[in-house]
Amino acid sequence: MFEKQIYIARRNRLRDKVGSGVVLIPGNTESPMNYPDNTYHFRQDSTFLYLFGLDIPGLFGIIDADSGNDTIFGDDITMEDIIWMGTKPSVKDLAGSVGVKNTLPFKELFNSSAHLKDNRIHFIPPYRAENKLLLQEITGIQASLLSTYSSMELIRIMVEMRSAKDREEISEIEKACETGYQMHVTAMKMAKPGVMEQEIAGTIEGIAHAGGSGTSFPTILTQNGQTLHNHDHSFKLEKGRLMIVDAGAESNMHYASDFTRTIPVGGQFTQKQLDIYNIVLKANNTTTALIKPGETYLSIHLKAAEVIASGLKELGLMKGDVHEAVANGAHALFFPHGLGHMMGLDVHDMEDYGQIHVGYDDEIHPINQFGTAYLRFGRRLQKDFVITNEPGIYFIPALIEQWEKEKTNNTFINFSKVKDYLDFGGIRLEDDILVTETGARILGNRIPITPDEIGLLQ
Amino acid sequence: MFEKQIYIARRNRLRDKVGSGVVLIPGNTESPMNYPDNTYHFRQDSTFLYLFGLDIPGLFGIIDADSGNDTIFGDDITMEDIIWMGTKPSVKDLAGSVGVKNTLPFKELFNSSAHLKDNRIHFIPPYRAENKLLLQEITGIQASLLSTYSSMELIRIMVEMRSAKDREEISEIEKACETGYQMHVTAMKMAKPGVMEQEIAGTIEGIAHAGGSGTSFPTILTQNGQTLHNHDHSFKLEKGRLMIVDAGAESNMHYASDFTRTIPVGGQFTQKQLDIYNIVLKANNTTTALIKPGETYLSIHLKAAEVIASGLKELGLMKGDVHEAVANGAHALFFPHGLGHMMGLDVHDMEDYGQIHVGYDDEIHPINQFGTAYLRFGRRLQKDFVITNEPGIYFIPALIEQWEKEKTNNTFINFSKVKDYLDFGGIRLEDDILVTETGARILGNRIPITPDEIGLLQ
Repeated sequence: MFEKQIYIARRNRLRDKVGSGVVLIPGNTESPMNYPDNTYHFRQDSTFLYLFGLDIPGLFGIIDADSGNDTIFGDDITMEDIIWMGTKPSVKDLAGSVGVKNTLPFKELFNSSAHLKDNRIHFIPPYRAENKLLLQEITGIQASLLSTYSSMELIRIMVEMRSAKDREEISEIEKACETGYQMHVTAMKMAKPGVMEQEIAGTIEGIAHAGGSGTSFPTILTQNGQTLHNHDHSFKLEKGRLMIVDAGAESNMHYASDFTRTIPVGGQFTQKQLDIYNIVLKANNTTTALIKPGETYLSIHLKAAEVIASGLKELGLMKGDVHEAVANGAHALFFPHGLGHMMGLDVHDMEDYGQIHVGYDDEIHPINQFGTAYLRFGRRLQKDFVITNEPGIYFIPALIEQWEKEKTNNTFINFSKVKDYLDFGGIRLEDDILVTETGARILGNRIPITPDEIGLLQ
Repeated sequence: MFEKQIYIARRNRLRDKVGSGVVLIPGNTESPMNYPDNTYHFRQDSTFLYLFGLDIPGLFGIIDADSGNDTIFGDDITMEDIIWMGTKPSVKDLAGSVGVKNTLPFKELFNSSAHLKDNRIHFIPPYRAENKLLLQEITGIQASLLSTYSSMELIRIMVEMRSAKDREEISEIEKACETGYQMHVTAMKMAKPGVMEQEIAGTIEGIAHAGGSGTSFPTILTQNGQTLHNHDHSFKLEKGRLMIVDAGAESNMHYASDFTRTIPVGGQFTQKQLDIYNIVLKANNTTTALIKPGETYLSIHLKAAEVIASGLKELGLMKGDVHEAVANGAHALFFPHGLGHMMGLDVHDMEDYGQIHVGYDDEIHPINQFGTAYLRFGRRLQKDFVITNEPGIYFIPALIEQWEKEKTNNTFINFSKVKDYLDFGGIRLEDDILVTETGARILGNRIPITPDEIGLLQ
């Protein structure tokens, strides 16, 4: 937990901005795995963590902008709980530790329904079904309509508050980066022919749990990198294949890291692999150099697309004018996703608020073109934003087949040449970047990325 | 997945037993962690796994006892899914692989509501809020009342079917035991003074993910073993303390293991620790020797209580007649939980059906006495049941203080002597046991358990 003053200041700032009404901030409950008492590791809601800091299940926060009071609802533990779960501070003491004076038993929340119905209420769209049922009960709004009735005003305020990271938050992200470094270097060392993907994925998951609160998202670790979010770890590594690892950790305070590296199983790139690898590496380095306050991430994404199209043209896989190719989205056959996303308390920061409200604004709107449409974050960068930079090149047989059949962008793609790459897989390289006053800083020790650095580890 | 004939036979058996009506078997969906698309590792529902075997999210099974048809509802993947998640077999092919001929798109489930309302429907009490909302929608029963309207008949049938394990199931449990063995031996080797509990807990969690589907329940690893289900891993191990590790793995097919060991940090028991340790070890070995078809687990639990009371009497911590002490529940100050539980596809097998329906029957009823009331499983053993055997002795300061103040069982407890143990912690030793034709077999290689065996690892 941070100092109590940080949470008090955040709640006061929110109260000032929202002006009037009652803000409902449900904490998360335990999430059952296969029966009620067998739960996944607890993950507190990020908005609750940001405003109230308390990392235990079964709490509910209310910030009343009219009365100026904050309240935490929650139940103290019983003697039975002490035997099974140990002694714990009272809700009163917990609330006090983050500067909240008022506490009430959880059941009192249901008695506040009448009060809530008389007031303007603000809440974020709930993503857990338990909180949908709870909000349905206390607000009277049907579960399926809660998202519609969520508060755009609260979303805008929270995005504004959480986008630029505090010094304390950056330091937590750096802890997550340190664990992420260990995860990736371990995976590189383990990537020998004959090893099961699952063995490496499990081992680095263990490093994430040993070093913090586990992984910040389900680990992608596969020699079938042509699938962007491949969570299958059931294959045995084969010499000469490319292994993509997209994985990160949470710090103990739940700040995220998120890195991707791609390495040759057995340690040696073929020339064909190296040619593609160097294009992706150039796209990564070029875009990091462009990141600075005032630039839009959409323009930097398109710059990555240009580097990729230009490199693929040199290899004979693309043709024609590079700018025109990118304008037509031809690069997206190979780079069908966005350059990156914000990162903070969530690996896709604030994605529960709605990606468009985090990544875009009145000035920068999403582009509805295949590939760029998946860019999660496009708006103008500001100091202390933390973003990922993750260009990639993939050869996705089903997509290549579809484009060729439909003649999509066939003035820019050499399909006959592309067919030599159908068993190539994919390459993605991702760092976590802090926007500084004048440019960018890669967070954490940069994980080995040049072919030479990688080779030394294997 | 097992052979398709196994699932067909199970569904036919269920259909025969239930006789009439429609059985609803919801599969699980992905479970969101901190925003909709960032999910915990997927855990399929165990009943769905038992009857339909398919380990992917977003499926729903219906077993129609009237028409004799089984149907799986689910959606095929789109081109967008292929890019992000890879190619997958169609729902039709998946269903075929477990012997189900009829498949329908998921949305058709909502069109079957009218049909469901005309028929007797059977379902297990849902434990995930997502499935509560879904069942509410298709059955018209309010979410909060679903448990009340669940089918006792279906519960009884499923308990009957799942209690004795098939040969194939036992082999899966043994795989989980093998991973559990690696987890525990690794923890023993790592338990040096100065190491953080979290580092060991995370590392063994990684072994569970590397060897199968992760841990079968949240790992307990603590030098504060006086708390039975302590999930806090935030302490640095201190020389001379006792470290309890209660942890197990899931096989790739989601069968569980569940073991507990207690070891001295730094490798050497004190005499005081050894005296208590040997009582718990004796309770464990004695009860394993008693396990055989026809015995009730309640009687074996009480035998463990006797071994414990008798040992503590020898040490001067208890006094008076041992049988009388156990009859009065005096041992429960030190052994406040049950001897064990069934284990299978769930670590507390079928606990979502209601513990009382799994652990008790018309013959054996739960005893409502502190300590024994927590015995999850009491009924008569049958061949091929798999159960845990986990006696323990703990010194729980808050409980000791309460009993002394209220003079609970003070004719059997030497409170003045007990006070010398307030900083002792706790000891628990747990194996997984298969009930054989004539007795019991400890599943997997037995994890080192004698003080000598433990000492050799450190």
